[in-house]
Amino acid sequence: MSLIVLGTVALDHVKTPSGTKKDMLGGSAAHFAMSARLFTQVHLVAVVGRDFPSRHLDFLNRQGIDLTSLKVGTGKTFRWRGEYKKGDFNTALTLSTQLGVLENYVPQIADYQRHLPNVFLANFDPDLQMKLLSHLKKPELIGLDSMNLWITHKLKSLKKLIKQVDLFVANDAEARALTGEYNLIMAAKRLRAMGPRLIVVKKGEHGVFFYSDKFMFSFPAYPVEKVLDPTGAGDTFAGGLMGYLSKVRKVDEKSLRQALLYATTVASFNVQGFGMGRTASLTMREVRERMKRLIRFFTV
Amino acid sequence: MSLIVLGTVALDHVKTPSGTKKDMLGGSAAHFAMSARLFTQVHLVAVVGRDFPSRHLDFLNRQGIDLTSLKVGTGKTFRWRGEYKKGDFNTALTLSTQLGVLENYVPQIADYQRHLPNVFLANFDPDLQMKLLSHLKKPELIGLDSMNLWITHKLKSLKKLIKQVDLFVANDAEARALTGEYNLIMAAKRLRAMGPRLIVVKKGEHGVFFYSDKFMFSFPAYPVEKVLDPTGAGDTFAGGLMGYLSKVRKVDEKSLRQALLYATTVASFNVQGFGMGRTASLTMREVRERMKRLIRFFTV
Repeated sequence: MSLIVLGTVALDHVKTPSGTKKDMLGGSAAHFAMSARLFTQVHLVAVVGRDFPSRHLDFLNRQGIDLTSLKVGTGKTFRWRGEYKKGDFNTALTLSTQLGVLENYVPQIADYQRHLPNVFLANFDPDLQMKLLSHLKKPELIGLDSMNLWITHKLKSLKKLIKQVDLFVANDAEARALTGEYNLIMAAKRLRAMGPRLIVVKKGEHGVFFYSDKFMFSFPAYPVEKVLDPTGAGDTFAGGLMGYLSKVRKVDEKSLRQALLYATTVASFNVQGFGMGRTASLTMREVRERMKRLIRFFTV
Repeated sequence: MSLIVLGTVALDHVKTPSGTKKDMLGGSAAHFAMSARLFTQVHLVAVVGRDFPSRHLDFLNRQGIDLTSLKVGTGKTFRWRGEYKKGDFNTALTLSTQLGVLENYVPQIADYQRHLPNVFLANFDPDLQMKLLSHLKKPELIGLDSMNLWITHKLKSLKKLIKQVDLFVANDAEARALTGEYNLIMAAKRLRAMGPRLIVVKKGEHGVFFYSDKFMFSFPAYPVEKVLDPTGAGDTFAGGLMGYLSKVRKVDEKSLRQALLYATTVASFNVQGFGMGRTASLTMREVRERMKRLIRFFTV
């Protein structure tokens, strides 16, 4: 079943110990879509500027992503410039952001998209995430991602929004910041109490922890020796998770375990290339092969 | 098969957000033995002072630990005083150490102990760890643990010793410090190149990573909501690992996976009590029950 995602489409300038790349296609919604398209039809809701390279548009189009609600606004495309220092790939240093067209953007969708059953609110301003929700008729599964920026500056909006979602995805630092709990199990319980019945805590190289009222589980990450660029790994992870759940149209313990294994697997490919260089060429066959290896990795 | 362990037996004074306890039985060899005794006969090689409470001696004795080579030296028992701050249980702040009898200690063992097949060199001065090795006739499996103190101050001795061991246990910070590699897979490969054919990287709440030439694997930790005192968790972990391997007398992929699941399980009990309060009363039945839950926790 189709999946709609709201988030950013950006031009990224990233420096890592392996090199520097400019004007890469990036942004939370773009990374998410590039991963979720492996599993289901994805509708992208975002804005870019007049300066957005047509090669990036063609590229998204060729991947089968529905760009009907990708607006080209007056102004410049959102730009993010960041750096990862040798060793610690868990922390991106933001060197600069240029909001450009994001400053006056209000998400709008086409009529036929109002009835889409699965929605993911990728990292974005919580007021705009809420706005998208208001356009949807009867979503069955609402997923949400956020980041420290919004926890710090728009906590009230974020908390209001969290109440309305089914599935909340946070990394460990965000889960701790939002709840004041260092222990991730306790943090996940507090997030649950805020509303969402499905809590996913991403731990980067340490894997993922899932919490719900009836069951919890954990998987280690796929062992990647050479990380080129982790930008978008979290969005790629979320794309695999929501993409799989949308595909199987079932949210139970079995499908959630499978979904998080797919999520872990696609994210492991993402970090092996710059930007979405690796995920863009990824096939389901490659994903399935690596997922088998991942499962063997922690089988008793 | 019997297992001999060299390390410290200490009087610990620990402060955690849950409380403060003084004069607790502690030390690397004591924690190790308290865990390994669940699996096999353990011979303790250590020194205490004249001030060492007889209740602690009786206690170790009642647990079936062979104390023949626990020397009572002239002077005071080694004392460690540490604190864990709210939240971050991965980092112990050492407030003070009083070496006491450790200052002039040279490990000695009884004749019948020279032929023991399994040995673990728990955290201790690498020169003394080497000394114990020289007493052993033909050990089949030599395990080693260390800590940042020795990496900083006795790196040459430590590197010489590492060459001679089969199994090296390090936490993530130690693995990184010893190799200069942040990526734990790369760090494990470098440790392997230093000599030991079996590399275990402990990641605290994030579980464990195992590396060898032919296979590698990873398990998440057992989810503990309320950590009371993590002191000795690493030694308890190593005790479960070496204890199980000594019991089954086989070191292959299957036994290593089982051993690391036992290790993970016993360590999870350790942190739920002060000092060895919880592990001392632990039974194999409890361990097996929790291990089943641990396995379900990450089963696909």
